[in-house]
Amino acid sequence: MFEALETGKALSNEDFQTLRSQLRPALLAEQFKLRDQPYPALVLIGGMDGAGKGAAVHRINEWMDPRLIETSAFWMHSDEEESRPFFWRFWNRMPRKGRMGIFLQSWYSRPWYDAMEGRLSKAEFGDILRDIEAFERMLTDDGVLLIKIWLHVSRKTQRLQLTEEAPRKQQNPRVPADADTWWKQYPDALTASEQLIRATDVSHSPWHLVEAEDRHYRDATVNQIILASLESRANTDAPVRTGIATTPDSRAGQPTLLDQVPLDKAVPKDKYKEKLTTLQSELQDLSWQAFHRRRSVVAVFEGWDAAGKGSAIRRVTTAMDPRLYHLIQFAAPTDEEADHHYLWRFWRQIERDGIATLFDRSWYGRVLVERVEEFARPDEWQRAYHEINQFEQQLLDHGSIVLKFWIHISPEEQLLRFKSRETQPHKQHKITDEDWRNRDKWSAYEQAVEDMVSHTSTAQAPWHLIAGNSKHYARLEILKTYCKALKAAL
Amino acid sequence: MFEALETGKALSNEDFQTLRSQLRPALLAEQFKLRDQPYPALVLIGGMDGAGKGAAVHRINEWMDPRLIETSAFWMHSDEEESRPFFWRFWNRMPRKGRMGIFLQSWYSRPWYDAMEGRLSKAEFGDILRDIEAFERMLTDDGVLLIKIWLHVSRKTQRLQLTEEAPRKQQNPRVPADADTWWKQYPDALTASEQLIRATDVSHSPWHLVEAEDRHYRDATVNQIILASLESRANTDAPVRTGIATTPDSRAGQPTLLDQVPLDKAVPKDKYKEKLTTLQSELQDLSWQAFHRRRSVVAVFEGWDAAGKGSAIRRVTTAMDPRLYHLIQFAAPTDEEADHHYLWRFWRQIERDGIATLFDRSWYGRVLVERVEEFARPDEWQRAYHEINQFEQQLLDHGSIVLKFWIHISPEEQLLRFKSRETQPHKQHKITDEDWRNRDKWSAYEQAVEDMVSHTSTAQAPWHLIAGNSKHYARLEILKTYCKALKAAL
Repeated sequence: MFEALETGKALSNEDFQTLRSQLRPALLAEQFKLRDQPYPALVLIGGMDGAGKGAAVHRINEWMDPRLIETSAFWMHSDEEESRPFFWRFWNRMPRKGRMGIFLQSWYSRPWYDAMEGRLSKAEFGDILRDIEAFERMLTDDGVLLIKIWLHVSRKTQRLQLTEEAPRKQQNPRVPADADTWWKQYPDALTASEQLIRATDVSHSPWHLVEAEDRHYRDATVNQIILASLESRANTDAPVRTGIATTPDSRAGQPTLLDQVPLDKAVPKDKYKEKLTTLQSELQDLSWQAFHRRRSVVAVFEGWDAAGKGSAIRRVTTAMDPRLYHLIQFAAPTDEEADHHYLWRFWRQIERDGIATLFDRSWYGRVLVERVEEFARPDEWQRAYHEINQFEQQLLDHGSIVLKFWIHISPEEQLLRFKSRETQPHKQHKITDEDWRNRDKWSAYEQAVEDMVSHTSTAQAPWHLIAGNSKHYARLEILKTYCKALKAAL
Repeated sequence: MFEALETGKALSNEDFQTLRSQLRPALLAEQFKLRDQPYPALVLIGGMDGAGKGAAVHRINEWMDPRLIETSAFWMHSDEEESRPFFWRFWNRMPRKGRMGIFLQSWYSRPWYDAMEGRLSKAEFGDILRDIEAFERMLTDDGVLLIKIWLHVSRKTQRLQLTEEAPRKQQNPRVPADADTWWKQYPDALTASEQLIRATDVSHSPWHLVEAEDRHYRDATVNQIILASLESRANTDAPVRTGIATTPDSRAGQPTLLDQVPLDKAVPKDKYKEKLTTLQSELQDLSWQAFHRRRSVVAVFEGWDAAGKGSAIRRVTTAMDPRLYHLIQFAAPTDEEADHHYLWRFWRQIERDGIATLFDRSWYGRVLVERVEEFARPDEWQRAYHEINQFEQQLLDHGSIVLKFWIHISPEEQLLRFKSRETQPHKQHKITDEDWRNRDKWSAYEQAVEDMVSHTSTAQAPWHLIAGNSKHYARLEILKTYCKALKAAL
């Protein structure tokens, strides 16, 4: 979930000033417009310790008109608050219609700390998160524009923030005397954060995940999300998930998760044959073991056009007894499928215990092609992240092993493959005008992939990004990952 | 929750035939209209064993065109189903757009049996219900018209159904050889049902609770709910909670919960004084005990105009140290209150641990006056039941004691009191034109009260219906209930 938030997104001082000069007047204009709207706006700033939540709130107040913003921090727990039900303190500071509020700590903070520090079990934390989700739904049903922003920093950066680079850190009473305490609990904080975001990342109040390594990028993006949310709500009455305003865009040109895929990886031809044989025979054994233990695999294969999905899947299926898997390819839905919920066509294919179901393209089409090509409305694909997470959770709860592969290639490699397909008679059927059209939307797809990974890569069902410029390398990687997952589960 | 479902609602054969002749053509018309709609309708029939779920489904198929209905029962658990995730079986039978499906058992059945028979703990059942709520939301977000009907029978009737009056009962393999088994677990079934309905009675897919003691009333009402839901969705794109179609109305003239309040109860004057003194001094002690144990009371006083709320509350407050309670009267909201969620004005008044907050009129205004006077839109007051249940749960979870009183009087008694107010100079301020107008809407309020009790009376925070024709009797009853609740909690 947080992989896509450690790609080194940053803004030079110059770019930051440019964005600032575009964002400020737009923010002020939306702020004044809000005063006449029949709803309040409430910004929640959450995130890792050391991510600069306080500094981000400072910047919002600096760029907007602070007289129209009411900022509340709930980090001191007064006697007045403690002696009333938990939500009382938040109700008390709720902005009225036409006003904007910022909660620097919110209803998330205490349960989050309690979860990461072991005072709440995973199940107890889950119950609280579901109550929070219902509470937020009540607010948004009533019209509240809820803008939830999560700031993420890597473990390394957190350590720097808390030890070396923050001379005034002592002023924050939450910083422990021994800064290592936090650093040590970083993995627990990530686990709690993933659970928190998954449970409450719903379409009426989505989480906006922001990489906070670079303060320029962080502050510009936070303000941009607020602007986009205010604009979108005033114009279309809907929350936005992307948080990217129409004109200024801090995400443009930033390194994405896909840039981190080591595309130069390859494997010598003789080694390939040898390793392929070893892995395939391993998979053969494992898939029979899975059958006998009644454990299913649900595997999803996604990737760029010409990334080599088909040939990679073939290396998996040839290793398995045909009775043990079911491979389905998905293109446009049939009319019967179109008459059902988009998940229906995938649910009906799910195989029995012990059998693998391999999906050549999958439900992720909802947040990839359907998003980019606008086959699905924004509210439809935005709520799909949560729906997909629920669906996969049901598979996992049943005992299935969920595997998700994205095969990545560079645009240059794709071009080479397209051209080769056009010239080779037996491959011409594999290249169509649509492929060329999709290629033109490379950056839109890149963004969709990054958002997809952010919102649906989880500890139990992570996305595996496979370097695909070398087809041999990609096939071995997929087989390796597949076998590893089976071994871990059996 | 089920009090309002044991009032003896019934239809004579003649009335039943009349309703039938009105409902059938309307149902058929809606059925044909549905074929061109971009959504399916899915009817879930749940409820107590012996309530006649199967018979009700029969009747639906008899009155509508069965060729356009696909009925599925999920009571046999096939190997195919068991070897896939739980929801697979339901996905597989999901109606497509324009079609209607009936699920005679649904995703509720197995968890409900497991909860009542102790195979699931309350918390585990709660988790499943939340997953179901999310699943249903996914369906309704996608457009599915979900019509959820719960059939209730009293313990006595269930016993009759399962032992004496059902000669063919042996054919149903769920009926245990010893019919007493079910009768013995009736209380557990009620507990599980209350939890089930509370958790999933949300505005996008509300539960329709139907008294099933009389098969004519049951069948007419079930069909009427389906008709009203189809009509409402085709015309306004919203689900309806009341399930009462515009013309035929099986609920008209039926005995309501309020008819069961023993209005003839009274207390001799000399006994009154004596009992009042005893109860008040008891309450004085108990309220100090509550203070020392930091337990709060949140008490709600509702009732008809001139029911004697004010004087009853005075008998409570005079018994308590003024430092130990906070009494607030509610009329029309202030402008600041109107700019917030309707619960805000109540939340802000909640007192600290150990102090009682007494509400003279309350958040229930949302589902009473705001519903009847149309100050709130149907979707607003319909979702309020769930919001109110959540709010009260937060109070209960914090340790507060929640008390809810409805003071009931007969319309005749109200008339006497209104007239007496008009003639007595010191009481004239208490009677306004509005009171006379409200009086004209007696039956609409009666319906609203019955729905309110059905949807918000829970084991932990039940409604107390107080017979108010004798003011003395009502005051003593309230004091008695108040003391009893404190004693039970302390």
